[in-house]
Amino acid sequence: MPSLLIRQIGCLVSTDSNLRSVVCGAEMALLPKLEDAFVLIEDGKIAAYGPMTECPERADEVIDASGRFVFPAWCDSHTHIVFATTREEEFVDRIKGLSYEEIARRGGGILNSARKLQLVDEDTLFSGAWNRLQEVISYGTGAIEVKSGYGLTLESELKMLRVIRRLKEKSPIPVKATFLGAHAVPLEFKERRGDYIRLIINEMLPQVAGEGLADYCDVFCDKGFFTPEETDLILKSAARYGLKAKIHANELGITGGVQVGVANGALSVDHLEYTGTEEIEVLKNSNTMPTLLPNCAFFLGIPYPAARQMIDAGLPVALASDYNPGSSPSGNMPFVISLACIRMKMLPEEAVFAATLNGARAMELEKEFGTIAVGKVANLVISKPMLSLALLPYSFGSNLVETVVINGTAVVK
Amino acid sequence: MPSLLIRQIGCLVSTDSNLRSVVCGAEMALLPKLEDAFVLIEDGKIAAYGPMTECPERADEVIDASGRFVFPAWCDSHTHIVFATTREEEFVDRIKGLSYEEIARRGGGILNSARKLQLVDEDTLFSGAWNRLQEVISYGTGAIEVKSGYGLTLESELKMLRVIRRLKEKSPIPVKATFLGAHAVPLEFKERRGDYIRLIINEMLPQVAGEGLADYCDVFCDKGFFTPEETDLILKSAARYGLKAKIHANELGITGGVQVGVANGALSVDHLEYTGTEEIEVLKNSNTMPTLLPNCAFFLGIPYPAARQMIDAGLPVALASDYNPGSSPSGNMPFVISLACIRMKMLPEEAVFAATLNGARAMELEKEFGTIAVGKVANLVISKPMLSLALLPYSFGSNLVETVVINGTAVVK
Repeated sequence: MPSLLIRQIGCLVSTDSNLRSVVCGAEMALLPKLEDAFVLIEDGKIAAYGPMTECPERADEVIDASGRFVFPAWCDSHTHIVFATTREEEFVDRIKGLSYEEIARRGGGILNSARKLQLVDEDTLFSGAWNRLQEVISYGTGAIEVKSGYGLTLESELKMLRVIRRLKEKSPIPVKATFLGAHAVPLEFKERRGDYIRLIINEMLPQVAGEGLADYCDVFCDKGFFTPEETDLILKSAARYGLKAKIHANELGITGGVQVGVANGALSVDHLEYTGTEEIEVLKNSNTMPTLLPNCAFFLGIPYPAARQMIDAGLPVALASDYNPGSSPSGNMPFVISLACIRMKMLPEEAVFAATLNGARAMELEKEFGTIAVGKVANLVISKPMLSLALLPYSFGSNLVETVVINGTAVVK
Repeated sequence: MPSLLIRQIGCLVSTDSNLRSVVCGAEMALLPKLEDAFVLIEDGKIAAYGPMTECPERADEVIDASGRFVFPAWCDSHTHIVFATTREEEFVDRIKGLSYEEIARRGGGILNSARKLQLVDEDTLFSGAWNRLQEVISYGTGAIEVKSGYGLTLESELKMLRVIRRLKEKSPIPVKATFLGAHAVPLEFKERRGDYIRLIINEMLPQVAGEGLADYCDVFCDKGFFTPEETDLILKSAARYGLKAKIHANELGITGGVQVGVANGALSVDHLEYTGTEEIEVLKNSNTMPTLLPNCAFFLGIPYPAARQMIDAGLPVALASDYNPGSSPSGNMPFVISLACIRMKMLPEEAVFAATLNGARAMELEKEFGTIAVGKVANLVISKPMLSLALLPYSFGSNLVETVVINGTAVVK
């Protein structure tokens, strides 16, 4: 594999000689930056980096990054990119005055995606998801998590997870698979939700685990979806198969999601639009990553998560796109970083850490991704020329990603 | 000039056999759409359009637009694309808790841009503005208005307006020039604002008009900027030179801007974040276009204009980007359309009318731009494949513009 030298880098961001696994609280504002730097890549990994005064003289390929920023590629730890169709008709319903919850109660929302997905074959699903994966790589995503949860039958959940497995096999970036059978209660189980939970526990989980189709187990623990008790039951069953928890919590209310997630040692609790001081205290005494998805608040018009309070309380925070057809039809991570700064008052440095190292941590990829460190995989973003880090979130309507390097190869230019 | 035939168009939007000059109220939701259509372009103008059954057999060049939407290019009637530098450091100050008004009081904001612009030569300014113009054309902008207002001295205002004149001369899309000497009161005039207003009226306006450098006159009529009485004085002086009014109003409060604009027969009153029923009544009895700039509310975190109330009251509405380094560092009109739908609850059809015909009207270009009509200039946007109009605003993080046609030539692909 040819070596690649990126030289004359205006500013190299998030260098990491200590191989940190997570960055919390006030440390999130202290993003390491090295001006006038180089990165040398060998065998798809970062072999060296440093000031230009120490730059090697040659390599098989050379990129001149004068005036540009180089970032670790974004680590997007929460997406639903396997789906049958977009749902812009529900978007128009919301413009006309319906709420997301009203649409869900009418059989729209997740159940609408499930109905549509059940009718689509695996190849078609794969092709759509593959195109979305290529699109997000073009914005600089270098590691991703993908959930099932639009199946809601044994057969369709397996279909989705097999599509995710194909993504894993073919993708140039790592893909983590999360089983989300408990995304919503299907209409036919409305009056007997216990039966659906038993279906998840007794049929779906054994088969998903048996085929090795999932890395994690997710539950939508919220008002109108699954209760903390139901969530607890499902997560404990998943744990018996070795599937760690990574859950949807507190999107629609203060509903105990954070508590049940932390109690089950969840890798992350995601959404957190409704988070009080009690939730923050619970998170402080845990290894669970609070993962914020500001696209969702932006698109649905619900409150943004209290990122500032969390960081000021010393917590780490991760940012993810939540790319899905209902509440976040975008996987553009630079825009997520913009939203985090513009609407959640995160500093650009904090947002970059949240979208890289902490995102990697939220899917157990922090040893290989998320910072510029010797030995880590060379998934990098090279910006267009810019003079300051803040220009990235500030330029919310422009694409400032010029080149994306994946496994040491420039894949998007 | 070679003829161009765009054929197999999935959906041709905003056809216009009656050459309408403006679309108001409930009519804004009735965007004409012609499926399976063609457009024929000769000498840079629309020569014919219609259903594919009537499509001509040949032309010098042919574009197959199967599965794609074709729109009239966006008409962006309010921008400040001539500026010296971006102002992301103030963006970070706001993240840290300062308000836009506090930053302005400390000599930041417009005065910051003015200080920087005064130090930059005309060629450098032109080059930056030219790059921004190219960028917005790539998003599909096909007509634009550009303001002065970062000069705030006779010399620097003239410098800006000469840059705008060079844009006009070189640009493939029409550029309207607006004199905005009354953008802010310079610090040195803080204790004698009457002197600055006299400078505008007695020195700037005569020279601007004498050199034919402006089409319109703007005033930032708002709390902390210019009062309605001062605005009235400036607009009446401008009118004597034949410069119509086009003003900033009601961005920071209910401050009488709409009233003084309408009383002076303003072509448009722009911003309107703070608009009450009284303002809406005043606008109903006028030919003044309410022009909304949702990027500004998004970026500054101020309330969005009440687009719904205005349209429901029977008013027309225009959308513009407000591209400028302080309150809207983006000229991406498809994102403006997204914001209008997502945050201001405009229907996709209404947002398209607002960003095309009504925008053209707000800069007196409605006879040649803004709809698909025989004889109009062939400035068009061809989308990526999409099945419904709503996909455009729904996909807020993606660029769905595939091809931009300017004067009958595909300039961006």
